[in-house]
Amino acid sequence: MKLWELGEFALIERIAQLVGSAKGKVIVGIGDDTAVLKGDSSFQLATTDSLMEGIHFHRNEISWEELGWKALAVNLSDIAAMGGIPHYALVTLALPKDVEVEDVLSLYKGILGIAELYEVATIGGDLISSLNIVVTITLLGSLERKSFLTRSHAHPGDQIGITGYLGSSAGGLKMLRRGLNLEREIASFLRQAHFRPLPRVREGRILTRHGVRTAIDISDGLLSDLGHICRMSKVGAKVRVAEVPIHPWVKSIFGEEVLSLALCGGEDYELLFTAPPQIMKRVSKEFPFTVIGNIVEGEGIELVDEKGNPFPWQEKGWEHFV
Amino acid sequence: MKLWELGEFALIERIAQLVGSAKGKVIVGIGDDTAVLKGDSSFQLATTDSLMEGIHFHRNEISWEELGWKALAVNLSDIAAMGGIPHYALVTLALPKDVEVEDVLSLYKGILGIAELYEVATIGGDLISSLNIVVTITLLGSLERKSFLTRSHAHPGDQIGITGYLGSSAGGLKMLRRGLNLEREIASFLRQAHFRPLPRVREGRILTRHGVRTAIDISDGLLSDLGHICRMSKVGAKVRVAEVPIHPWVKSIFGEEVLSLALCGGEDYELLFTAPPQIMKRVSKEFPFTVIGNIVEGEGIELVDEKGNPFPWQEKGWEHFV
Repeated sequence: MKLWELGEFALIERIAQLVGSAKGKVIVGIGDDTAVLKGDSSFQLATTDSLMEGIHFHRNEISWEELGWKALAVNLSDIAAMGGIPHYALVTLALPKDVEVEDVLSLYKGILGIAELYEVATIGGDLISSLNIVVTITLLGSLERKSFLTRSHAHPGDQIGITGYLGSSAGGLKMLRRGLNLEREIASFLRQAHFRPLPRVREGRILTRHGVRTAIDISDGLLSDLGHICRMSKVGAKVRVAEVPIHPWVKSIFGEEVLSLALCGGEDYELLFTAPPQIMKRVSKEFPFTVIGNIVEGEGIELVDEKGNPFPWQEKGWEHFV
Repeated sequence: MKLWELGEFALIERIAQLVGSAKGKVIVGIGDDTAVLKGDSSFQLATTDSLMEGIHFHRNEISWEELGWKALAVNLSDIAAMGGIPHYALVTLALPKDVEVEDVLSLYKGILGIAELYEVATIGGDLISSLNIVVTITLLGSLERKSFLTRSHAHPGDQIGITGYLGSSAGGLKMLRRGLNLEREIASFLRQAHFRPLPRVREGRILTRHGVRTAIDISDGLLSDLGHICRMSKVGAKVRVAEVPIHPWVKSIFGEEVLSLALCGGEDYELLFTAPPQIMKRVSKEFPFTVIGNIVEGEGIELVDEKGNPFPWQEKGWEHFV
């Protein structure tokens, strides 16, 4: 069987079976946003994520500095989804020989720019020659306390919360691909949403303080990422489509397409989290978020309209190989 | 300026300048075999290394299991070169869509095979679709005590020691490329040397116990890697070419080529270490190694023959982009 027949998520399951369940000092192994390791006096986090030319970005669309920024951002978002604190980054750059040295240094400036914002130290990495550009970052972090956010603790009755807006990042990409000529402020907002996301590290830490136990970051798209939570928590979800938070600018520009951007676009790097209503109420005093539905018994995601009737939908989120 | 004009090592220096010197909890940052981090009660190590199709391997030469084995081995070797203990691996696989699922599982079996031998737990990673195969592993480890091996502590008067033999790995590759038809035992030895190296983790730990402070693993080739030590320690080296350890089988098969394999071939994943003679004497009671020369005042590497006369040599070790 070829990878495109199996798909990314089923392959991860096959690999996880082969590797075996987490044991000893490995508290969380393959399958969540980051690994969780028992250190001497605290819990350590480790995660790795790559941006590959032709798959995640195209050289004519992204600046080198943005590429560096985003490569660290996607990893910061995984730490955020565990409620952790990021500390150290290892950077592997696979680069064609004819790349300009100045461009590589710009890429590093992008990494160092967001690293400073999140108090991350760049501690090493690897350089290799390659046909395509690949930026792989491994990010190490820690937890303030023993509690952390996983994909496997959602319970029926939990509300589903989302930070920020969904679909802005996919909107930014659509703007570029279609050469849309938008007002400067809007164009800059959309470009920033796609290339310079600001992962929700602060919010993730607040969630663990209030006893929230379930979260994921929106990287593959709302439906795909909520699907991971449902599968790993063995629950279903009901989402009120009208409640999904979409920025007014994105709504006004993309019209009917907007739901596709928000439900399946991905790369928003917002946090999706679930918790009982009384916990959600406490969290709402700390930062703004939107409740888009509930965790229910069963499996799969049911989309409903304002009247609670089924909302027809086919499209799926991003999956590698398929 | 293009990358091929600057070269890998000068680019690393430019990046290290941009990132700035190690500070706070970062004891060793960019430029050594691994980063060293100050943990709560011990020192942590972190390193990352990739194998890229077309650069480090060709799909028709290596088995999937060997690829997994070697991808972890090259990282284990970096931990060995610090005198550390390996613990956790994060595996990023970039794979074309038409790869067989069974092949990916074989690759993982290779990783798990060597991981078990070195007591390493595989804790996570990333899967991405790609045109070429790239295996990137980040390996986390720790130190038994505060002392560790670096590239920057060689002193004039130190002897230069080498574990095992050099040139066997490059010999293995030559055997494949030329389709040499060798006795089964020899062919298997050479193939193993190239595809299934056994990094010197045990030896690295013993070195730190005896007060050795300088080491590097032979990945780019003896001259290239000893050159890193000379540059970072601001010293020179004198190498007696006749003392460079080469396996008798490799000598008998490759004849005059053998020096090129041993001095520049690389990928042996043996340890090169330097220390004063009295420390070397103590180490020699723990495991066998070969003294190939001395650290001297000045800079650069001088090769000498049995009579101490200059030995003429031009070829260099491996460097990316150039």
